[in-house]
Amino acid sequence: MELKNDLLLRTAKGEITERPPVWLMRQAGRILPQYRALRGKLSGFKELVETPHLAAEVTIQPIDELDVDAAIIFSDILVIPEAMGLEYQLIEKKGPWFPETIHSMKDIDKLVSGAEAAVQLEYVYEALRITKRELAGRVPLIGFSGAPWTLLSYMVEGSGSKTFSKAKKFLYTQPEAAHALLDKLSDTIIVYLKNKINAGADLIQIFDSWAGILSPEQYKEFSLPYIRKICAAIDEAPITVFAKGAWFVLEELNDLPCNVLGLDWNTTPEFARERLGKDRVVQGNLDPCILYSPLENIKEKTLDMVNRFGGKQIVNLGHGVYPDTPLDGVKCFVDTVKSI
Amino acid sequence: MELKNDLLLRTAKGEITERPPVWLMRQAGRILPQYRALRGKLSGFKELVETPHLAAEVTIQPIDELDVDAAIIFSDILVIPEAMGLEYQLIEKKGPWFPETIHSMKDIDKLVSGAEAAVQLEYVYEALRITKRELAGRVPLIGFSGAPWTLLSYMVEGSGSKTFSKAKKFLYTQPEAAHALLDKLSDTIIVYLKNKINAGADLIQIFDSWAGILSPEQYKEFSLPYIRKICAAIDEAPITVFAKGAWFVLEELNDLPCNVLGLDWNTTPEFARERLGKDRVVQGNLDPCILYSPLENIKEKTLDMVNRFGGKQIVNLGHGVYPDTPLDGVKCFVDTVKSI
Repeated sequence: MELKNDLLLRTAKGEITERPPVWLMRQAGRILPQYRALRGKLSGFKELVETPHLAAEVTIQPIDELDVDAAIIFSDILVIPEAMGLEYQLIEKKGPWFPETIHSMKDIDKLVSGAEAAVQLEYVYEALRITKRELAGRVPLIGFSGAPWTLLSYMVEGSGSKTFSKAKKFLYTQPEAAHALLDKLSDTIIVYLKNKINAGADLIQIFDSWAGILSPEQYKEFSLPYIRKICAAIDEAPITVFAKGAWFVLEELNDLPCNVLGLDWNTTPEFARERLGKDRVVQGNLDPCILYSPLENIKEKTLDMVNRFGGKQIVNLGHGVYPDTPLDGVKCFVDTVKSI
Repeated sequence: MELKNDLLLRTAKGEITERPPVWLMRQAGRILPQYRALRGKLSGFKELVETPHLAAEVTIQPIDELDVDAAIIFSDILVIPEAMGLEYQLIEKKGPWFPETIHSMKDIDKLVSGAEAAVQLEYVYEALRITKRELAGRVPLIGFSGAPWTLLSYMVEGSGSKTFSKAKKFLYTQPEAAHALLDKLSDTIIVYLKNKINAGADLIQIFDSWAGILSPEQYKEFSLPYIRKICAAIDEAPITVFAKGAWFVLEELNDLPCNVLGLDWNTTPEFARERLGKDRVVQGNLDPCILYSPLENIKEKTLDMVNRFGGKQIVNLGHGVYPDTPLDGVKCFVDTVKSI
């Protein structure tokens, strides 16, 4: 089905468009009353992730409510470790938790990978197919995956962490096992993303949420090559790479065979453009906390950011929208971009 | 009393020294068996902070055990909010927690500040006097404070946080109240640090631990001016400013009237030297997780870092040493620097 609004895809491919597209990371979530109402009826977050028609419903909610230029499939980056054999739980108000974690090569040998792992995520592909059908071409649908390093960090650490020191220790003390795990993750992610594209994803985003915890040297050894491998393997759809906190390898990220680079809110447009050039398509990067401020300020800061990037931008926040953000602030952000 | 080892002070003042001085942030703590033995006998962390002869004892432990070139007084940055009227607790394995937090100007009006607040921290000054006496000139003694923004972030958020979104929301929605609180904090910190110097501190370090959570614009409005005010008010001892994650304002930090800039492990020596020049004295910045790796690797990475900074460096980690770091790794780091 032809897209009625293909601003996101044209911008991602480097075309000059009538205005920049806009969407928000975590737009399908607690900021929406519709989401909270549905979520309240369910046993948990995973029920929502694993039930295709419900995942599709919450994916479409922000299109109806906010009229953003893209939908992003409601899911979780940790479905990949689970499909590989490492079950996870989501503890309310605490975040993800893995009852078993990776300690050594022996644990890694036990994990399935590639097509054998990806085939277990049929519920994700079904959610994409339903969403695609129900969107009926209104906006493009984004599929996503965690980056190999970010997924490894949870599989070794077992939960979120301020320092991810266990995961980093694993890289320093068992580098061969780390590379073996990153290989298995990459192989799985490649099949998973191809399946997502087959099921309807128009663009792929790779989230390297814990990029910023690594030293530049570790990032170049344990993260970049695997993102590169994934980007190189996928030519069926444009790709956005969002490596949060990875300002220190911005030039190296710029060399990836991907279409768009996501930026966090610490990165000024000037710093980014100096390193990336004026033709690199970027995504981001308003401080999500600006949406708490008065509407006049949201409008001013949004326009200022767009102006300073000087085009070739998919407008977004520099991080996922925070759950308690006022809906008025979110709408002001979206409407400001749409008025350009 | 004259110092037998004044490498730290001479380096901080910009002198060329026979080798770089070395110490570790959080060197007085769980990495040492002596610390764990003492801590096990006490009711809690705060008992240790608030009992001068015990705080002095753990301050000196790493001098005995590791033979580092500086002692840093064992204390906590949150003694300042408490002295101003906001009591805190330290919950085991969870971190700091404030039963009451700052919501508005009314809450800020109730806080005491300046000398009236600083006078309540007599137990800290007494710990410094005892330490100074017991050190008997072996190495310089560092006193420290949290930066105003970092202290505000805890006072508003009420605890640690991945996003500090409440604290940032406060800046965006109540900027005048935020500035009033930052003023009160700065006034208190200035008196507090002068008292610490009077009690024996030879050098002062200001920790802006949550610098990296702010946007460049917010950092310039809500943090930098207050650190500048503190630096300008103190000329009795050299000052180190460590703004963790503040790579995006490195040039602005370089303009502060302070002696040393601390750097985190994301910052390569090349990035730092390009922005700071070759004459700025820096402190840092080995990735703390390197100390988990084999000794040969610790040695190599430490020497490589020192070499790349090219002098004018107080060698340290890019963050506090993690509690489960092997003592052998810590000693290898220290001994490597001392062999230069």
